[in-house]
Amino acid sequence: MKKHLLLSLLSLIMLSALSFSQQALFGGANIISPEVNPDNSVTFRFQAPDAKEVKLTGDWMPAQGRTPGSELMTNDDKGLWSFTTAPLASDLYSYSFTVDGIRNTDPNNVYMIRDVATVTNVLIVGGGKGDLYQVNDVPHGTVARRWYDSPSLGMKRRITIYTPAGYESSKQKYPVLYLLHGMGGDEEAWINLGRTSQILDNLIAQGKAKPMIVVMPNGNVVQEAAPGESSLGLKKPTMQLPNTMDGKYEETFMDIINFVESNYNVIKEKPGRAIAGLSMGGYHSLHISRFYPNMFDYVGLFSAAIIADEKVKSKVYENMDETLLKQKNNGFKLYWIGIGKTDFLYKNNVEYRSKLDEMKFPYVYRETEGGHTWTNWRTYLSELAPQLFR
Amino acid sequence: MKKHLLLSLLSLIMLSALSFSQQALFGGANIISPEVNPDNSVTFRFQAPDAKEVKLTGDWMPAQGRTPGSELMTNDDKGLWSFTTAPLASDLYSYSFTVDGIRNTDPNNVYMIRDVATVTNVLIVGGGKGDLYQVNDVPHGTVARRWYDSPSLGMKRRITIYTPAGYESSKQKYPVLYLLHGMGGDEEAWINLGRTSQILDNLIAQGKAKPMIVVMPNGNVVQEAAPGESSLGLKKPTMQLPNTMDGKYEETFMDIINFVESNYNVIKEKPGRAIAGLSMGGYHSLHISRFYPNMFDYVGLFSAAIIADEKVKSKVYENMDETLLKQKNNGFKLYWIGIGKTDFLYKNNVEYRSKLDEMKFPYVYRETEGGHTWTNWRTYLSELAPQLFR
Repeated sequence: MKKHLLLSLLSLIMLSALSFSQQALFGGANIISPEVNPDNSVTFRFQAPDAKEVKLTGDWMPAQGRTPGSELMTNDDKGLWSFTTAPLASDLYSYSFTVDGIRNTDPNNVYMIRDVATVTNVLIVGGGKGDLYQVNDVPHGTVARRWYDSPSLGMKRRITIYTPAGYESSKQKYPVLYLLHGMGGDEEAWINLGRTSQILDNLIAQGKAKPMIVVMPNGNVVQEAAPGESSLGLKKPTMQLPNTMDGKYEETFMDIINFVESNYNVIKEKPGRAIAGLSMGGYHSLHISRFYPNMFDYVGLFSAAIIADEKVKSKVYENMDETLLKQKNNGFKLYWIGIGKTDFLYKNNVEYRSKLDEMKFPYVYRETEGGHTWTNWRTYLSELAPQLFR
Repeated sequence: MKKHLLLSLLSLIMLSALSFSQQALFGGANIISPEVNPDNSVTFRFQAPDAKEVKLTGDWMPAQGRTPGSELMTNDDKGLWSFTTAPLASDLYSYSFTVDGIRNTDPNNVYMIRDVATVTNVLIVGGGKGDLYQVNDVPHGTVARRWYDSPSLGMKRRITIYTPAGYESSKQKYPVLYLLHGMGGDEEAWINLGRTSQILDNLIAQGKAKPMIVVMPNGNVVQEAAPGESSLGLKKPTMQLPNTMDGKYEETFMDIINFVESNYNVIKEKPGRAIAGLSMGGYHSLHISRFYPNMFDYVGLFSAAIIADEKVKSKVYENMDETLLKQKNNGFKLYWIGIGKTDFLYKNNVEYRSKLDEMKFPYVYRETEGGHTWTNWRTYLSELAPQLFR
């Protein structure tokens, strides 16, 4: 067998890596974007010699009414456009470029996350809460995508399950947090945009959260799985799915609990069960926890979409006051409500809290800046998880 | 509590979903791209009223030397650019747009896969081998991302493991295919671009492959995990990692086998072990299977990078003929070699086969059209898996 140098193999592979790889391996090879600078400002770069205007849009920028904020980038004499932000608070951010009016992803950043029907690049600024969203040098849990049987819905459904480091070799029984997504989301939302596995790995390693299993189901009862993960094929995702808030999910939620409790080494009692969710998932958490009023010791409502549709007839939404009272009288450890000051659901949450106050239903309230955003939901998970199973 | 209609909630959520979501939910809402037509031609669409030229590049197009093939798209009077291909053979394809010289992803297609340092949109054309790459209405296995301990490398490392449908509730012991990626790849390569879970789900459901566990480790010994999944953070991926073909991976491979055999319900003998890999992973498979010459009953070399670097000194690469002879004399069920006619490694494989022929080392040879491509590697996995563990 002939002898060659490894270097020639490398060149051969790289030269023959046709088409798509070329831009990233050659054209874009020297461009670093985004670059988080020592002072936590971030520099973005985009190569476009013939462009007339390149703008940067990022979710840290204040919006202009309904128009997302943006900044004009400046170009050098070689067509490299760049923009450096002011120092940013530590967090996970999304951004995109707009090149002569056309939205573009950053070809120099392979890290992208889908939110409903849009894929955007992401970056993390460390030195604060963003550190919780990083993969750090700590023991890591396992993330499994599985399928469970839902007899009540008559289908097999996909589910994402985080088990903490050490779970597989441990004999102890673990508590479970059921973590629910919002409208347009699915069983990929919390694990991707929510950074659940990183947050839990980090909080557990720091001794701030108890080791727990986190179960992230799909809350759209007409869906078997996230877009692209079912036999519907690579269809375009849609936010407007039917039957998302008509009681069916709440009513059939026992299928998920039964699956988890018969397939994992878990505490099968109230002190070992928590449920929390964002937006629509907050609504689901509210109703699941009162429809099964002695099931959960911990409930979390994150920017909960507490909006009843009086046209919807479901046994789940009947006797609301009665079941809330039952839930209160059965007792629980923590009922946690978090919302941002500018959230469009703020008022609905004020009304719901008044109702709870009238009933002397105990809860913990957390109000943050900002609105209906993933930055808030990651914060809420990071704050709630340490309070669970104590 | 005030009553609203679900529709108003939906509008509120959609209107308040700032910035990134807007384009996909509104601007691009009516555009379907790509659209696979009944005759398996595919129509691509891209909205760019001010663009002067929009090109489509796809991996089904013949390359022009080192330049990827492309087609000019045509625009209508509303700035919607489109192009319809001839009917395409059933497969999974990658593509991108080039708008006035700038590469862009398709904002109407959320399905993207990273290959080394580039993210491209993908689509599947059914009606043939592409059907194996679809999620179909069949029982689905579990895909877990875990971390295992590699004492020989002194680090915890990430690994992707497919367990077939029914594994969790079965008492039977399963055979294991160790499936290795190429240079620049990692533990995400086979499960994403390789469509391993779809191929196995489908072949097993059709009764064409035996239920098996597929273990997809990271073959870069200096890496704990794929880009973005280690404490290196969201760094730019690189193809040029050190120590990829210097014997260290082969030498420490027992860490992976030990992890799998002590954590999964598997057959811990030669008839229950297969190893296969693409390009660099083919080289690894060749050497691991002869360095441990009585470990595997099944070996698959896919476009194997059979290139020795004489400057590399490793006990793994010593006594090549002797250990191959030992492997031959120990006996095995299948030694499978697959390569494309235009692969730049074709000649190296001819030379390696001559060597095997001289030794009367039995193997099965499969030659396909095309070169060093994922379309070939998916084909090879689809063809090899049914022959394993018989």
